[in-house]
Amino acid sequence: MVERAGEEVTAVKAGDLVIAEMHVNCGHCHQCRLGEAHICQNVRIIGIDQDGAFAEFVKIPATNIIKLDPTIPERYGAILDPLGNAVHTVLAGPIAGQTALVTGCGPIGLMSIVVAKACGSSTVFATETNEQRRAMAKKMGADMVVNPAAEDAVKKILGETGGTGVDVLLEMSGNPTAIQQGFKALRAGGRASLLGIPTENVPLNLVDDVIFKGATVQGIYGRRMYETWVKMLALLKAGRLNLEPLFGEREPLEKFENAFAKLQGGLPGKILLYPDGVPR
Amino acid sequence: MVERAGEEVTAVKAGDLVIAEMHVNCGHCHQCRLGEAHICQNVRIIGIDQDGAFAEFVKIPATNIIKLDPTIPERYGAILDPLGNAVHTVLAGPIAGQTALVTGCGPIGLMSIVVAKACGSSTVFATETNEQRRAMAKKMGADMVVNPAAEDAVKKILGETGGTGVDVLLEMSGNPTAIQQGFKALRAGGRASLLGIPTENVPLNLVDDVIFKGATVQGIYGRRMYETWVKMLALLKAGRLNLEPLFGEREPLEKFENAFAKLQGGLPGKILLYPDGVPR
Amino acid sequence: MVERAGEEVTAVKAGDLVIAEMHVNCGHCHQCRLGEAHICQNVRIIGIDQDGAFAEFVKIPATNIIKLDPTIPERYGAILDPLGNAVHTVLAGPIAGQTALVTGCGPIGLMSIVVAKACGSSTVFATETNEQRRAMAKKMGADMVVNPAAEDAVKKILGETGGTGVDVLLEMSGNPTAIQQGFKALRAGGRASLLGIPTENVPLNLVDDVIFKGATVQGIYGRRMYETWVKMLALLKAGRLNLEPLFGEREPLEKFENAFAKLQGGLPGKILLYPDGVPR
Amino acid sequence: MVERAGEEVTAVKAGDLVIAEMHVNCGHCHQCRLGEAHICQNVRIIGIDQDGAFAEFVKIPATNIIKLDPTIPERYGAILDPLGNAVHTVLAGPIAGQTALVTGCGPIGLMSIVVAKACGSSTVFATETNEQRRAMAKKMGADMVVNPAAEDAVKKILGETGGTGVDVLLEMSGNPTAIQQGFKALRAGGRASLLGIPTENVPLNLVDDVIFKGATVQGIYGRRMYETWVKMLALLKAGRLNLEPLFGEREPLEKFENAFAKLQGGLPGKILLYPDGVPR
Repeated sequence: MVERAGEEVTAVKAGDLVIAEMHVNCGHCHQCRLGEAHICQNVRIIGIDQDGAFAEFVKIPATNIIKLDPTIPERYGAILDPLGNAVHTVLAGPIAGQTALVTGCGPIGLMSIVVAKACGSSTVFATETNEQRRAMAKKMGADMVVNPAAEDAVKKILGETGGTGVDVLLEMSGNPTAIQQGFKALRAGGRASLLGIPTENVPLNLVDDVIFKGATVQGIYGRRMYETWVKMLALLKAGRLNLEPLFGEREPLEKFENAFAKLQGGLPGKILLYPDGVPR
Repeated sequence: MVERAGEEVTAVKAGDLVIAEMHVNCGHCHQCRLGEAHICQNVRIIGIDQDGAFAEFVKIPATNIIKLDPTIPERYGAILDPLGNAVHTVLAGPIAGQTALVTGCGPIGLMSIVVAKACGSSTVFATETNEQRRAMAKKMGADMVVNPAAEDAVKKILGETGGTGVDVLLEMSGNPTAIQQGFKALRAGGRASLLGIPTENVPLNLVDDVIFKGATVQGIYGRRMYETWVKMLALLKAGRLNLEPLFGEREPLEKFENAFAKLQGGLPGKILLYPDGVPR
Repeated sequence: MVERAGEEVTAVKAGDLVIAEMHVNCGHCHQCRLGEAHICQNVRIIGIDQDGAFAEFVKIPATNIIKLDPTIPERYGAILDPLGNAVHTVLAGPIAGQTALVTGCGPIGLMSIVVAKACGSSTVFATETNEQRRAMAKKMGADMVVNPAAEDAVKKILGETGGTGVDVLLEMSGNPTAIQQGFKALRAGGRASLLGIPTENVPLNLVDDVIFKGATVQGIYGRRMYETWVKMLALLKAGRLNLEPLFGEREPLEKFENAFAKLQGGLPGKILLYPDGVPR
Repeated sequence: MVERAGEEVTAVKAGDLVIAEMHVNCGHCHQCRLGEAHICQNVRIIGIDQDGAFAEFVKIPATNIIKLDPTIPERYGAILDPLGNAVHTVLAGPIAGQTALVTGCGPIGLMSIVVAKACGSSTVFATETNEQRRAMAKKMGADMVVNPAAEDAVKKILGETGGTGVDVLLEMSGNPTAIQQGFKALRAGGRASLLGIPTENVPLNLVDDVIFKGATVQGIYGRRMYETWVKMLALLKAGRLNLEPLFGEREPLEKFENAFAKLQGGLPGKILLYPDGVPR
């Protein structure tokens, strides 16, 4: 927690329970000067560009540290990075009184359902091929969950919206087919916020799906520093985000290999790892 | 429901249950051309500029008519004009993850509490001198209700927000003192959305309360035509706005004098008047 | 100029010089109700979905008609549809104090250069393979014009912006390569407003060019009805848009075949056709 | 130029010509975390809360320092603080294709005229009682300058805008009467951006001038850190802001008393003070 040599840290002290933004920005590039630190040209990500927080100690700039408010359960502290992704995506445009489609119900997709409902989305649709995750999506509050491997998701969603399509697409899968279907299910004038990471180029029908639709497409990266954190923590402190179903699994830290295998197998939720043994 | 001589109305037919925007705009002034029909320079308000809807028949342009969706309870059809005021005010800026202060808990203030919570406000404060209305504000979901006649509301709210003040002021009273207190309780950079109608000039400390604060102050009038209606109806259809406590009183139409007297006495809610007898 | 049977038109009278929005919206779909008439679900375009204005008489709803202000030269009345495209695109986001790249210098691209400069863009780059159009782009005020067939346009623009890229991409070509290059030259956090119409699917590197960049991509269609018209006419009345170089060619109407051939050959500008002979 | 003990400054070096934001923010309050550093709760202003820059040396955090680009004339470096106020005010909302009214033509008012025109304002009106400043306002590009002591400014401006009023009010005087007139001249739905500092409470007719008008009122303070700087410097580097008429007077530093007396006498512009003698 030392920003620069010689600087004294006063906001937190040894023993405080803290959370951290892991994007470390440079502070002087064009984007940093514009208040867009999350897309800093010289960003270093702790855990990607350098060793991360699976360690006893980690060095993080004081600016990136926030004390965890005691009214927020400790376990939530373990998922604030992906929850911040979800909050950033959902709140990147209007959501109150809007219909939304979440494509992909991995952990961030599932969180997005909860955030969207808490922020006034009228109807949240979700698509997901994994059965367990579809069940979890229902549990998290999705109004309708569709299996795109079994039925025509676009037709279904257009039918449910009177042929208009959804106001907001929250793309959480990175899957090219899901992205294309998401655009087809988006209404003219709608917003598509893309967080999922495709592993290849995605051929888009820009004319029909973006241009003639007058759509707005947003790339979403990280969390706004620190507007997303402020809003996320306010929602959590107010008890507005019930994420309990995501915390189904708890393991001692030494069983981490087992835990990662479960996640890669499509587990619908998160696994809490405890360094000092799982609390009863 | 005839717009202009000779025009055929196709969107609704005799017998349909409908709701109506009572601001009739001209369609060709600067504001109408800009999509700001609610502040049309030549607006005529049915019920103010001409006879209103306390009548067996009323003539309204087809454009101003919307069919009431069958999933929305009929009684809600009686309060959509003021509910639209509340939705317009709350959604005139960001509300998700924001603290809000509602000054004045008449019917629109009470509705604003519900709308703000449904759209993700983290904490809603309310001020009101009438005891019954304070009780109703709690019932509608306000997190803290303050009687400004009995305690220092500004000090209280600043204390609850760590000295920062609220993100959003929803001014529903029109009372000069409440307006001034609202501005004092607003954080620097906050939004003040003013719907209440003061009956006299209000001396504002523009320097401390607006300029140095970098505050944004919005005059709110009517409902956006028809963006507010679209969002309000989406929220109602999705069951996101529970306004049941407001419907405590029901009377036959012929007892209207009695009903209006109750309202003027500060009744916390609405009175439903039934032309054909109160349903059991 | 008759909207509906039986309705009287009062805003214009026979003999008035008028201009017209050729998108005729339905007035009752989701988008029309939201004030997004330009992307009406039931839009009919005069000149595409039905016979257009190459005729002695054409029937247009009164709402779509605007009187041409006498301070605006008549010839400008002939190009307001494409100029509206340019104004809509440039003003779809911030432009003052922003660097911009116009990809494609057909008539609308050329107009966009003028609009962007008039609205405070600090530096306008343009790319175009046609030599005459590049010369015209310079004449219209572009600060730097690049021939992407002869040099590496992306490298050039990144170099000129200190490696950051441009704040705003105004895509006017519909050419897949130009679109891809435009995204590469866009800064992280930038805005890409797409008006050009590709004739095939465009493979986009969504990860690098949109998602990690936190970019905003906007589909632009038609003109906002009628916000774009109001702003465009205000700029024209104030003499802020000098489009004179575009009016290089004038022909009598009967030589229309010749005129269209010139346009298809890449003429950098517009050709005015006069039904009653070219004025001296 | 030392931020904190022990930190090394790398962005600038001894001998560089630099400019500085004089608001020093805390970095950890609610507003700083939200990217609103210009309204930091713990702001210290160099020159107000502590000794300022009328000195041979001044200590300023490295973050607040920007190198003056060599393409910008040195004399502009002396006026970037007030120019930033003007840029912040003008760009606090849409200005392209908008009519604007500048109330008060002191230096910042005069700069606002230039900025508004450069950013696409269609027509700029200005009010000012001082004759010299009115003449300067014309020179800076105002389309119409009114003396409110001699004629009815509100009536005049409403007349010039077809009875509608201006789209944007840029309040630069702090004079209660000018503020009230500005609101009367503002169109329904317009924006009022207030920078001038009244010395007393201003009684506002909130009903007619804000609420029924659906107006947006913005308090403007300082400069956005550092978005305003980025845009201002981009405009200056591009040569888009001609402020030469403001630089009419030059004096050696030792004649500062004389210079301040001239400014207090209503001099229309700035006086450049030179510590080493006025350059020829």
